[in-house]
Amino acid sequence: MTNDGAVFSPVPGEDLVFTKDTLVAGVHFFQDDSPELIAQKAQRVNLSDLAAMGAKPEGYLLSLALPKSGLNVDKWVSGFAGGLLKGQNDYGWQIWGGDTVSTTGPITISITAIGSVKRGEFLSRSGANPGDQIYVSGEIGDAACGLKILNMGIDQESNRYLIGRYHLPVPRIKLGKSLVGIATSAMDISDGLMADIGHICEESNVGAVINYHQIPTSKALINFLKSNHLETNEDYSYLVWNGGDDYELLFTISKEKEDDVKKISKELGVGLTKIGEITADCKAILVDDDNHEINIKDHGFSHF
Amino acid sequence: MTNDGAVFSPVPGEDLVFTKDTLVAGVHFFQDDSPELIAQKAQRVNLSDLAAMGAKPEGYLLSLALPKSGLNVDKWVSGFAGGLLKGQNDYGWQIWGGDTVSTTGPITISITAIGSVKRGEFLSRSGANPGDQIYVSGEIGDAACGLKILNMGIDQESNRYLIGRYHLPVPRIKLGKSLVGIATSAMDISDGLMADIGHICEESNVGAVINYHQIPTSKALINFLKSNHLETNEDYSYLVWNGGDDYELLFTISKEKEDDVKKISKELGVGLTKIGEITADCKAILVDDDNHEINIKDHGFSHF
Repeated sequence: MTNDGAVFSPVPGEDLVFTKDTLVAGVHFFQDDSPELIAQKAQRVNLSDLAAMGAKPEGYLLSLALPKSGLNVDKWVSGFAGGLLKGQNDYGWQIWGGDTVSTTGPITISITAIGSVKRGEFLSRSGANPGDQIYVSGEIGDAACGLKILNMGIDQESNRYLIGRYHLPVPRIKLGKSLVGIATSAMDISDGLMADIGHICEESNVGAVINYHQIPTSKALINFLKSNHLETNEDYSYLVWNGGDDYELLFTISKEKEDDVKKISKELGVGLTKIGEITADCKAILVDDDNHEINIKDHGFSHF
Repeated sequence: MTNDGAVFSPVPGEDLVFTKDTLVAGVHFFQDDSPELIAQKAQRVNLSDLAAMGAKPEGYLLSLALPKSGLNVDKWVSGFAGGLLKGQNDYGWQIWGGDTVSTTGPITISITAIGSVKRGEFLSRSGANPGDQIYVSGEIGDAACGLKILNMGIDQESNRYLIGRYHLPVPRIKLGKSLVGIATSAMDISDGLMADIGHICEESNVGAVINYHQIPTSKALINFLKSNHLETNEDYSYLVWNGGDDYELLFTISKEKEDDVKKISKELGVGLTKIGEITADCKAILVDDDNHEINIKDHGFSHF
């Protein structure tokens, strides 16, 4: 990273998409998390943004602010660089530059990610229409539960899977590319399912009804809740719709595309689950199987 | 900045260049500097990197980490946004996205800047050859002196010009574009003249001899030193070659291009001064008029 700048020759007929995500120690990760993991997560969070736009990852720029004290900088940076390299190999993209500064505050990592799409063919948040079906990829709530396990000091060894889902989310790159031309809107779930469907509603000027019981959850999450007698504990059940950090894709399609979605799910081996429908009334609500609205305002949900 | 990402359609036959610079309160600016100024400076520092590559500014992404306490966030952000807008108007570029996070540390601003150049035609640091002439734009040392005035609590009112040069450097966009095809290497002076010629030497695998007495300085700087009886104070004289924050362009040309440089200087109304010559011995040194090496190691100069 000695050069001020990097040069990229775009392929004719392609657009570039740009995203930026910043991670702060103590907010988005734990300062004593392994730097290898932090580096990979920082990349993956940004790759997930590219996935949500249907883009192919090309390169990224990194800004690293490191505290002047309390950190073995050489050792940390060496581990961090190893994690970056692993992420570059895993996702076939490159570092295009960046800078390192010192700070009196916590470790702060800011990544700008650049991806390519065929000209005009990118996924946005603004194309959802009333009647569209709402889908999510994978399973929801694991990462938030993993974070809670870390925060509560609950036994980590038996909950490796959930913690792993928090530390190393899987950006849905292939899925995002497959959804171009099929999804009417898409985004990745980072703030939490209901908050993020709210973003789509806002940008598309529509509403949404999500069925709580259709939200796909992992066996690991259910087992954790059962074995800890937490199934009815609201602090845990709301993680599913409010938890964030899933980095699964949330997308909408018109009804006639449902077969395409089934085909994509099969081809990629990724679960794609219908969880609700876009409405015309500019309000995103969560309902139970009897179509009764579940009150989500009392759980810190403030995006509406 | 509600969207995860921005989309840009590159012009056929153009490359894109990317640069990234991060500013931390207490390191790169004062936390109580006006947010309008901070926003403009953050843009200009990045615009200067684009200028050094001969690029036309296109857009930028912004990451803003704001402290949870000790800051009137609404007021600060409002001023900052005004500064961003002013910078966008001044330099004809746009914001393409970004994110805001909270931090337990100081205000941290990270900008990724994107510029365009004709395919393959960008300025780099790596093309300097022995015998090339070394030039700088404008005048050197003002910004570092301005910072020193602020740090030492010296009367600010009578030193507005020097302080202004620290707060609002002028990125040499037009000059950078004009130097494409003429300069063999270029960069902007941010670390300090001798450190930055060192970067060119390193990347070009050459050395440099800079004549201290040829480095152009402003009347304001000379007057300040004289009126404060600081002309022989080494703490001040070394600001010229070690001070940093100038954001002038430092570039090299082959001897036969000297007339082109004169022409550009006249056309743009920007002083372009020859300060030395590239050598073959991979060492950057500062000399006086008698060609005696000036010892710069004792002044905190550590880039060699």
